[in-house]
Amino acid sequence: MANKPLKQYLKICQARVERAFEMRLPSVDQEPARLHQAMRHGALGGGKRLRPTLAYAAASAVGVTREQIDAAACALELIHTYSLIHDDLPAMDDDDLRRGQPTCHKAFDEATAILAGDALQTLAFQWLATDSANTVDARIRMIEVLARAAGSRGMVAGQALDLASEGQALDRAALENIHLHKTGALIQASVNMAALVKPETTGEQASALDGYARCIGLAFQIQDDLLDVEGQTEVLGKQSGQDAAHHKATYPSLLGIDAAHKEAARLIEEAHRCLSGFDSGADPLRWIADYIIARDH
Amino acid sequence: MANKPLKQYLKICQARVERAFEMRLPSVDQEPARLHQAMRHGALGGGKRLRPTLAYAAASAVGVTREQIDAAACALELIHTYSLIHDDLPAMDDDDLRRGQPTCHKAFDEATAILAGDALQTLAFQWLATDSANTVDARIRMIEVLARAAGSRGMVAGQALDLASEGQALDRAALENIHLHKTGALIQASVNMAALVKPETTGEQASALDGYARCIGLAFQIQDDLLDVEGQTEVLGKQSGQDAAHHKATYPSLLGIDAAHKEAARLIEEAHRCLSGFDSGADPLRWIADYIIARDH
Repeated sequence: MANKPLKQYLKICQARVERAFEMRLPSVDQEPARLHQAMRHGALGGGKRLRPTLAYAAASAVGVTREQIDAAACALELIHTYSLIHDDLPAMDDDDLRRGQPTCHKAFDEATAILAGDALQTLAFQWLATDSANTVDARIRMIEVLARAAGSRGMVAGQALDLASEGQALDRAALENIHLHKTGALIQASVNMAALVKPETTGEQASALDGYARCIGLAFQIQDDLLDVEGQTEVLGKQSGQDAAHHKATYPSLLGIDAAHKEAARLIEEAHRCLSGFDSGADPLRWIADYIIARDH
Repeated sequence: MANKPLKQYLKICQARVERAFEMRLPSVDQEPARLHQAMRHGALGGGKRLRPTLAYAAASAVGVTREQIDAAACALELIHTYSLIHDDLPAMDDDDLRRGQPTCHKAFDEATAILAGDALQTLAFQWLATDSANTVDARIRMIEVLARAAGSRGMVAGQALDLASEGQALDRAALENIHLHKTGALIQASVNMAALVKPETTGEQASALDGYARCIGLAFQIQDDLLDVEGQTEVLGKQSGQDAAHHKATYPSLLGIDAAHKEAARLIEEAHRCLSGFDSGADPLRWIADYIIARDH
């Protein structure tokens, strides 16, 4: 469960993303209507908006305005959304349910889901390129970091390694490598965006934020694995028990449930230590760290 | 068949793209190796490199160096390649053969093909963002134009409209609308890149190039449709007769074969008229125009 200040903070961040998506995603009145419906279905179907919230929280920590981080926050969520749509496809994880709704290819069809994901990825870069709240230098830095985080040595690498690992006996290093890419790369990019907007950020601050991001990224995945074992489909908004059904290596399966909980808690403590040099502007990052392992969906 | 000066010009442009891809695409020695193999399979499998060649030819017309257009040329081809990989998927056009080779999902598997396409798209934006031959302003302009051309109101719109049209009775305006998006948008972006690199390009020059691009884009598609009727699988490097098999509306099916040939020839004449204000620097664009309707694959 999110604690009270985080609940309010999440609400503010979610509302900004929701409003931007509502206003800026291609309208369903425009052709191709079905494609635009599918893009909106994927992007507006709720979701925690964790990556945008991390971007806003890191902005708060280094003194960057929300307006300056809006485009990055949306671009991160567009990339995340496209990856979910493609990951849910029958050829990939073959999931029917996402955020309590039918997945994109279930609500529409496979071809539309592939294209909607493709177009959402494109849109992420378009929105960053046209981000008038920032200099062209800052925009280029953000585009480069987002592309590296999303690409074949970032998020997509994680998905490829994950698929290749199904039915394989993985050790902990291999599992960690998957998650550092699959979810970690984009989470790190989310936390790092603010420093790209503000060149005055010190190297010390930037690497502290990066360390924080690495810790919460792994903790996030451990908690995801734990929820798949311990959580309920209705609360999760997606089918629980999928990892076991797919014989996937997970932290609970490798470490045991108790040790997985402990490891997640240890990582969150380390995340807090990374933030020790920041003032109360970093509190939203601290709330998020605590939330990562307290959440039930 | 390409005439002699164009043959040499194509060779130069193809060699630049091939060399850049060989050097800069993620190595198959790097994990995830299978993903990187699939990306290279898609990107290095030959191909006409029409879009890069158009970008170089337009650069020649407005006095931009090849070095300054290299990144754009490669980015255009990366986007084109990703779209081919995704379009060939079973859920889309379900093609087994491309450029005389097994399509990506045939040579690898569907999940890998989806991810390879995704990562190639990301790479296009990464390469433009890190294009040290151009100012950050020029890079941002190119990224924006490429994203608009590739997105849900550009290339992906065309693919979505095309899929929705299968088995439908289309009129000529609807068919033209599909092709202006599906192939036209990226061809126009290819021709327009050079002017983005060189802000001194006059508005007159820029709109003449845009008009040229629109004409050859449509002529290209008409020729594609004609080759599907009249061409041979071995020469095409892909299965001929696919449009009829899928009951697709095409220019030959709507206009008749003779009228389709005439319309393509008319468009190429118009393309030449668009170039009338340019000196011999625009000759490569002129050769390409003639080649579009002379090609047999």
